[in-house]
Amino acid sequence: MRELVLGVDLGGTKILSGIIGTDGGILAKSRLLTPAGGPERVLDTIAASAAQLLQASGIREQEITGIAIAAPGPLDFAEGMVRDSPNLGWGRVKVKEELSRRMGRPVIVEKDTNMAALGEYYYGPYSKCRELLYITVSTGIGAGIIIGGNLYRGRAGGAGEFGHMVVDAQGALCNCGRRGCLEALASGNAISRQLDEMAGQGRGQGILACTPAGKRPGPRELAAAARQGDEEAELLIARIVQYLGIGIANLANLLNPEVIILGGGVMLGLRDLLLQPVREYVQRHAFALNREDLIIDCTALGDDIVLYGCVAAVSIKDVK
Amino acid sequence: MRELVLGVDLGGTKILSGIIGTDGGILAKSRLLTPAGGPERVLDTIAASAAQLLQASGIREQEITGIAIAAPGPLDFAEGMVRDSPNLGWGRVKVKEELSRRMGRPVIVEKDTNMAALGEYYYGPYSKCRELLYITVSTGIGAGIIIGGNLYRGRAGGAGEFGHMVVDAQGALCNCGRRGCLEALASGNAISRQLDEMAGQGRGQGILACTPAGKRPGPRELAAAARQGDEEAELLIARIVQYLGIGIANLANLLNPEVIILGGGVMLGLRDLLLQPVREYVQRHAFALNREDLIIDCTALGDDIVLYGCVAAVSIKDVK
Repeated sequence: MRELVLGVDLGGTKILSGIIGTDGGILAKSRLLTPAGGPERVLDTIAASAAQLLQASGIREQEITGIAIAAPGPLDFAEGMVRDSPNLGWGRVKVKEELSRRMGRPVIVEKDTNMAALGEYYYGPYSKCRELLYITVSTGIGAGIIIGGNLYRGRAGGAGEFGHMVVDAQGALCNCGRRGCLEALASGNAISRQLDEMAGQGRGQGILACTPAGKRPGPRELAAAARQGDEEAELLIARIVQYLGIGIANLANLLNPEVIILGGGVMLGLRDLLLQPVREYVQRHAFALNREDLIIDCTALGDDIVLYGCVAAVSIKDVK
Repeated sequence: MRELVLGVDLGGTKILSGIIGTDGGILAKSRLLTPAGGPERVLDTIAASAAQLLQASGIREQEITGIAIAAPGPLDFAEGMVRDSPNLGWGRVKVKEELSRRMGRPVIVEKDTNMAALGEYYYGPYSKCRELLYITVSTGIGAGIIIGGNLYRGRAGGAGEFGHMVVDAQGALCNCGRRGCLEALASGNAISRQLDEMAGQGRGQGILACTPAGKRPGPRELAAAARQGDEEAELLIARIVQYLGIGIANLANLLNPEVIILGGGVMLGLRDLLLQPVREYVQRHAFALNREDLIIDCTALGDDIVLYGCVAAVSIKDVK
């Protein structure tokens, strides 16, 4: 009998659900906007969309080995509880308990960046390495940490808040309240904010020229302008590269991992502009011992990386 | 029969050797200045001082269960090789091989901050916790990382370079070549450099008044002035607290450890001025999930922490 997993990637803007085999084949997938109106409605929507996905795909519930939900952090792992999540705008929500009740069976709840790290580790090409860091550069920035071949969560599940590493003490204000967090300098949100500021000062005309009428310029428009050789766009890209490079060199110096895998919408969408320059920055700025043989690459799992993590979380026995 | 360990803490300025029992009792200790003239002379001095320590203490060599040497990083653990150490001014030196030969038996070689973390973990009060970070604030800044109850070295032994976490991208130049490393902002060297700059500008008179004639002001003089309520000294202390706080909050957000232990000459000498303010900074700036129940304290092992680590490295069987 085939072993199937129902995975849900809950984000601030979308709910991605999928039914995936332990062989990595995705049998069915659905994508919904995260409804406004608070946690109850979101949790109801997750349960309903899961039921719908089963029905539409003709897969019987008994065929599902397990259910795993990825949610934005901070997330208390033992409690399965989202804690003061800025992305969801939630206080304390017992996702594990609430969804287990709604779905009539136990569910695994894991922070989304941790789930992505599991996906990359078990379904990417580096499953033989012992230390792997997965970094997502999307609207926000976060990380999942594999140490000794296992997911590292820290004391309460709080590990991996790489986006809230302060790298520029005098830098821009972050939505976490601190100054100069990596997320405030190099995330998709940070790019959009900087483009707004430029537009407000009458700068960035080349980027605005790449922006569809009525749309706010963001990473995609910045990239389009940079690819056309627009100087202001190139300068901003260079700054993003510098900040990502600082953050990743900090990680290399602190944790000396074997592999650092990058993903997330901004990173994958701007891969041609970011990956090689970031690699070169890290090669220039991390200690020789820490950068030698260090692999820095983009994930090949794309948007589905979290769904792959859901399969790993359910099916791989040594996931602790 | 008593089990004894010969431990050596090799630093840029001093060589501290000791014979310690596995019960934590220090039977003999010697302290020498690190000789100038390159690695050969330093390694000869270590071997000679070990022989001398045995002779002076009347302990027979057969009673020594094992020998462990702590050396400044970067240190390739598998090779037992110091690599481009700014503190020692060495290129590549095979410390393990050279000292094993000189001493006629195998020696364990470990990075000094890692050794200190082992000492704290096995001889401090938190040996039951799973995640412990040890941070030294001395002439430089470094860290040792215990994860899952084991020393975490990363791929090649390069983990723990906390002093070279950039926290202020526009900040002071570090001797590693980067800008705004924690070590360039909050270490003993950084304090002395800032006091020199102040003196050069005719500032810091209250600190100079606390400085013995002919001496360059440093952390000790800064502390004396701050304790007398000197405003410039208090301001500089506040800046040191801020940078240490940023660095430690970054670690708490990234690794969510149970315990963070602080040591090193600057930290222990200025404990009354630094510890509580740093704790408060971290409580204000790390995520709730990451700071709750987080213990931040100073080591009780003082200058001998690395020697305790040498005992742990030799005698504790599950040290990998």
